[in-house]
Amino acid sequence: MGELSHVDESGAARMVDVSGKAVTARAAVATGTVRTTPDVVALLRRDGLPKGDALATARIAGIMAAKKTPELIPLCHPIALSGVKVEFELGESDVVITATVRTNDRTGVEMEALTAVAVSGLTLHDMIKAVDPRAVLDGVRVEHKHGGKSGEWDR
Amino acid sequence: MGELSHVDESGAARMVDVSGKAVTARAAVATGTVRTTPDVVALLRRDGLPKGDALATARIAGIMAAKKTPELIPLCHPIALSGVKVEFELGESDVVITATVRTNDRTGVEMEALTAVAVSGLTLHDMIKAVDPRAVLDGVRVEHKHGGKSGEWDR
Amino acid sequence: MGELSHVDESGAARMVDVSGKAVTARAAVATGTVRTTPDVVALLRRDGLPKGDALATARIAGIMAAKKTPELIPLCHPIALSGVKVEFELGESDVVITATVRTNDRTGVEMEALTAVAVSGLTLHDMIKAVDPRAVLDGVRVEHKHGGKSGEWDR
Amino acid sequence: MGELSHVDESGAARMVDVSGKAVTARAAVATGTVRTTPDVVALLRRDGLPKGDALATARIAGIMAAKKTPELIPLCHPIALSGVKVEFELGESDVVITATVRTNDRTGVEMEALTAVAVSGLTLHDMIKAVDPRAVLDGVRVEHKHGGKSGEWDR
Amino acid sequence: MGELSHVDESGAARMVDVSGKAVTARAAVATGTVRTTPDVVALLRRDGLPKGDALATARIAGIMAAKKTPELIPLCHPIALSGVKVEFELGESDVVITATVRTNDRTGVEMEALTAVAVSGLTLHDMIKAVDPRAVLDGVRVEHKHGGKSGEWDR
Amino acid sequence: MGELSHVDESGAARMVDVSGKAVTARAAVATGTVRTTPDVVALLRRDGLPKGDALATARIAGIMAAKKTPELIPLCHPIALSGVKVEFELGESDVVITATVRTNDRTGVEMEALTAVAVSGLTLHDMIKAVDPRAVLDGVRVEHKHGGKSGEWDR
Repeated sequence: MGELSHVDESGAARMVDVSGKAVTARAAVATGTVRTTPDVVALLRRDGLPKGDALATARIAGIMAAKKTPELIPLCHPIALSGVKVEFELGESDVVITATVRTNDRTGVEMEALTAVAVSGLTLHDMIKAVDPRAVLDGVRVEHKHGGKSGEWDR
Repeated sequence: MGELSHVDESGAARMVDVSGKAVTARAAVATGTVRTTPDVVALLRRDGLPKGDALATARIAGIMAAKKTPELIPLCHPIALSGVKVEFELGESDVVITATVRTNDRTGVEMEALTAVAVSGLTLHDMIKAVDPRAVLDGVRVEHKHGGKSGEWDR
Repeated sequence: MGELSHVDESGAARMVDVSGKAVTARAAVATGTVRTTPDVVALLRRDGLPKGDALATARIAGIMAAKKTPELIPLCHPIALSGVKVEFELGESDVVITATVRTNDRTGVEMEALTAVAVSGLTLHDMIKAVDPRAVLDGVRVEHKHGGKSGEWDR
Repeated sequence: MGELSHVDESGAARMVDVSGKAVTARAAVATGTVRTTPDVVALLRRDGLPKGDALATARIAGIMAAKKTPELIPLCHPIALSGVKVEFELGESDVVITATVRTNDRTGVEMEALTAVAVSGLTLHDMIKAVDPRAVLDGVRVEHKHGGKSGEWDR
Repeated sequence: MGELSHVDESGAARMVDVSGKAVTARAAVATGTVRTTPDVVALLRRDGLPKGDALATARIAGIMAAKKTPELIPLCHPIALSGVKVEFELGESDVVITATVRTNDRTGVEMEALTAVAVSGLTLHDMIKAVDPRAVLDGVRVEHKHGGKSGEWDR
Repeated sequence: MGELSHVDESGAARMVDVSGKAVTARAAVATGTVRTTPDVVALLRRDGLPKGDALATARIAGIMAAKKTPELIPLCHPIALSGVKVEFELGESDVVITATVRTNDRTGVEMEALTAVAVSGLTLHDMIKAVDPRAVLDGVRVEHKHGGKSGEWDR
């Protein structure tokens, strides 16, 4: 059985020293799903009309949150992100969020991708909560990573 | 059918004017679940030993994130939080996170409670990802609200 | 001739004590203009099609920046904003930005409105700079204020 | 006619992937002008006396804002700034602000230079607004860039 | 013997609920001392000449840090500061820093005053470290508080 | 006698250009001491029991503050930290804090280590202030640095 990577042998939290790791191109993809009602999805689709900002707001929130990851997750390293993409897929009564994050740095970017998904999802919740206060953010998880020592990883 | 509350009739996003709303005591409770493995839960329990910081790190991250909500969710109002609590319940292969947020202000604090839950959950993911990269954050949702015009609300 | 309000008699900067000022409903409107080319304005109009995010991105950036004003302008007081609106008017070769900010607090919100305009304008610059690197942000100024001791003020 | 660089073919905003771009020494110079009254310029000059902090406050605000650019401009990459300089030139009834920003990174720093100018200008506005509420920030624009694929660029 | 106020009976950290506390005018004064060399103090005095920004930079840093206290100290409440002042007294080989913070809110502002002193002191350290890398920040402490249930408190 | 490194010959503050400096592995160690009472130290030791979060909170606050250094200290460069460690040693009536910070970058990290120590110390103060409002943070200073042109440096 492995060990928690962010606490030392005495149990104390620390930001692990990564100076010895190689600077390589890395990417991570994470997804999550906002479960809501067909009515809300219809409102979001209608948002596809000129100037409808609901999905754009959630997308921007996700991209900006990816940059804030080291401020939010205490033991994450500050990382020079080289690209962030947030995509939505509208289902019958849900919205699937996919975030792709790229870097050239010493650690992976799965936390950045997860943070983009979670904050996009919460922003959607905020936009729709007057119509559906029961919305749920489900299944926030890493789908794919590559780069670094561990190479390619798929869920 | 209602309307998205954060976009105006032309579809443009805005921070809704709440000057007319009353300053009242308000609270919100949100929950979420990190699904992982029995091995990880055992590691987190062992963290119950002296100086084990894993759960404390996730708790602090959640409390600090509640304060950051208006920086993360674009259309949220800055709010004077008067109290934040983050609790964990360790199951067989999951951790249930409950956040309770209180304020005396003009708008509700469900987004603050949801943000505390989501960032606590992502921080747990960060602590355990070397052992269980497949962990999933599920069921992030509001359980209870009170205060303001709508009074008591339970899921 | 008046005095600079944020430096004391010895010339030292300070955040002026406003404890004695009344909590009242206050608002401020600021404007500014991004001068660019007819081609760029055409691209932004085309953005009026489904999912075109350029103007939405600038709008969200302006709203979020209003909330960040006390972090950016060293001697500004932290203020509980109760509403923020950012509007664009596309001309032949320019975009006029108007920001309206409301609060119930002890100081005015003209700096918040100016910050929303400036950051919206810079974000537009960022979106269009590959097409028009010569774009200029002009005329950032307060148009109107009300609330507080000085009452109504128009440019 | 070119295309907006921060939206994809479907119109969705994204942080463009720059992993393929070279790390080179880059610099950008931006300027802007605060138009005010001869009285205000006289007050700022008097600030040249010992401990007068008005211009220093605006300078520090500009330097700190350059570092905050990726937090303010949604699609800007986080960048490792290697130097920032903000200079003021007092005219008869205006203050010309010049910001110079340097980096060794994968993208240019014109947004950082523009942000330093804009926030310096707004901070000056904040310092002088009790004396001249009609002050205007004009002509915020890039003057010069070098480094990267496009080499030297002058306005 | 009292108890740590920010952990509950099980030892878990939380942001204590202050909804029941009264909104009153409160103030706190904190001090600290940067111990350095007579040479450095002479350089800082010379900074008293036109445009010398060293002390102004430290002063601005302290004022801005007071506003950032709830972002830095995990269990501090966000507070509406109504005034911040940072003063320096140059001795033979030291600089005494005094910060005064005022609010109208539900909790005291001693942490804000301490944070202003500490960050001003660190900023001075940063300015002088090329000349005196051995500088020490000493005696950071609360001198005086008033307002709230406990009334007047002097060291 | 040397010169203040962050002001130019005219006295103006600037972020010094470090583009010419080499990217090397660098580290810095700083310490500081919270002087309090034997009773408080006993409470903190008792915190060594399961789930006692007081020291963990201060540790996390210090690690997160190291990442915030360029936001707090106006002329510090943004730096890619590769590791941060914060340790406590409980004495009879004091707590000694030691922070170790590592990077691979163009400038040293002593300001990051000092900031981690200061914010950890202030967080401890916040946790214990109900029991000992007279606590003092003393002796915040650099103990050791290495990397860069100046090589090894010990106090």
